[in-house]
Amino acid sequence: MERVVRHFQEELGVLQERLLAMGGFAEERVRESVLALASRDAALVDRVLAGDEPINDLHIEIDDRCFKLLALHQPMAADLRAIVAAVKINTDLERVGDLAVNIAEAAKRYLLHAPVKPLIDIPRMGDIAQRMLRDALDAFVRRDIALAESVLAADDALDALKSQIFRELLTYMMQDTAKIEPALDLILVSRHLERIGDHATNIAEDVIFLVSAKDVRHLGSASSGL
Amino acid sequence: MERVVRHFQEELGVLQERLLAMGGFAEERVRESVLALASRDAALVDRVLAGDEPINDLHIEIDDRCFKLLALHQPMAADLRAIVAAVKINTDLERVGDLAVNIAEAAKRYLLHAPVKPLIDIPRMGDIAQRMLRDALDAFVRRDIALAESVLAADDALDALKSQIFRELLTYMMQDTAKIEPALDLILVSRHLERIGDHATNIAEDVIFLVSAKDVRHLGSASSGL
Repeated sequence: MERVVRHFQEELGVLQERLLAMGGFAEERVRESVLALASRDAALVDRVLAGDEPINDLHIEIDDRCFKLLALHQPMAADLRAIVAAVKINTDLERVGDLAVNIAEAAKRYLLHAPVKPLIDIPRMGDIAQRMLRDALDAFVRRDIALAESVLAADDALDALKSQIFRELLTYMMQDTAKIEPALDLILVSRHLERIGDHATNIAEDVIFLVSAKDVRHLGSASSGL
Repeated sequence: MERVVRHFQEELGVLQERLLAMGGFAEERVRESVLALASRDAALVDRVLAGDEPINDLHIEIDDRCFKLLALHQPMAADLRAIVAAVKINTDLERVGDLAVNIAEAAKRYLLHAPVKPLIDIPRMGDIAQRMLRDALDAFVRRDIALAESVLAADDALDALKSQIFRELLTYMMQDTAKIEPALDLILVSRHLERIGDHATNIAEDVIFLVSAKDVRHLGSASSGL
């Protein structure tokens, strides 16, 4: 029994490490996609578009690990919550990878046009989104509620930037119809970044639930616990 | 033991029924949000905006049921896969509810302007997305792979409509700057509907995995099974 328990904790450690690796990939792809857009680097755009496989492979591997841990060890309470959280975090990170592809697709179209304006707020959104991802995963590994809560707070900054970008680009579109199409792609990129922030928020909420068994997902509507 | 097993199957039945109820809510909210937009019904927009609570409550209740089933019954193989699938489907349906709110938010802004054009393709996208949701959940309940695969096929129709809507609205925006702002909201609505289709696709993929233990999520990159 002792050996089985240690084996389980080791496996849980590996699971966590693989999730961190996946988070690292996801964060890097967000960084590259925004950099490719802002620096008008078509080769980097293509690298992001072609580089989805490591995340997809990890997605399947991590799901598999979670299943096996649940099936072979039948964990209880905190361990069970950690594995179910891992299943969800895995899904969120895979979607972040997809969103990096979406950003690269928009960048590819954007590069066909003259630049609408120098990009400042979109790289800023990218930085915030990456930071949120990193903090949410660190919070998961360290079971750090305060750090998870800082992720929830950062999401407001991201939403404010998104609205500001929208209003600014709308003005450009009104003034010059040649800017409509590229500006549309910038608006889409800002939405993709907002959604990356939403995924980081989901992860942070899972961490808070995991640590406190407190459900903060729909504050005011109901509460939950195991 | 016999009693525990029957109790488990009963609980699994209740879980499935609650997921169906949540799917019904989600589908209805998508229907209402698109109808409110297309019929310019501001009162219905507000009802969608205010009506998120039943889905959020169900989201928490279903998550809770999954945890309890995992913790108390320690299911194996197919039952385990069904419960992990339920956790994921629950997340997808909750996001669909959020997207219905996003559509209603866009509709609220859209109603401040003169109509860009009579809406035909957006209601069509709404119908397809609702159908995909319904079929994906039916496929889950009946463990019907063929039906799940039909959901994956329908997603292509949705994507094609989204691209067509984008090109058409771009033309309107180019011709009349007064149409830029409302047309942008229609483009966003078409993206929200596309994402609802993506969630139905996720559910269908979970069903295929559940029934066949075959992972169709990243065809070509790797394969998985329990």
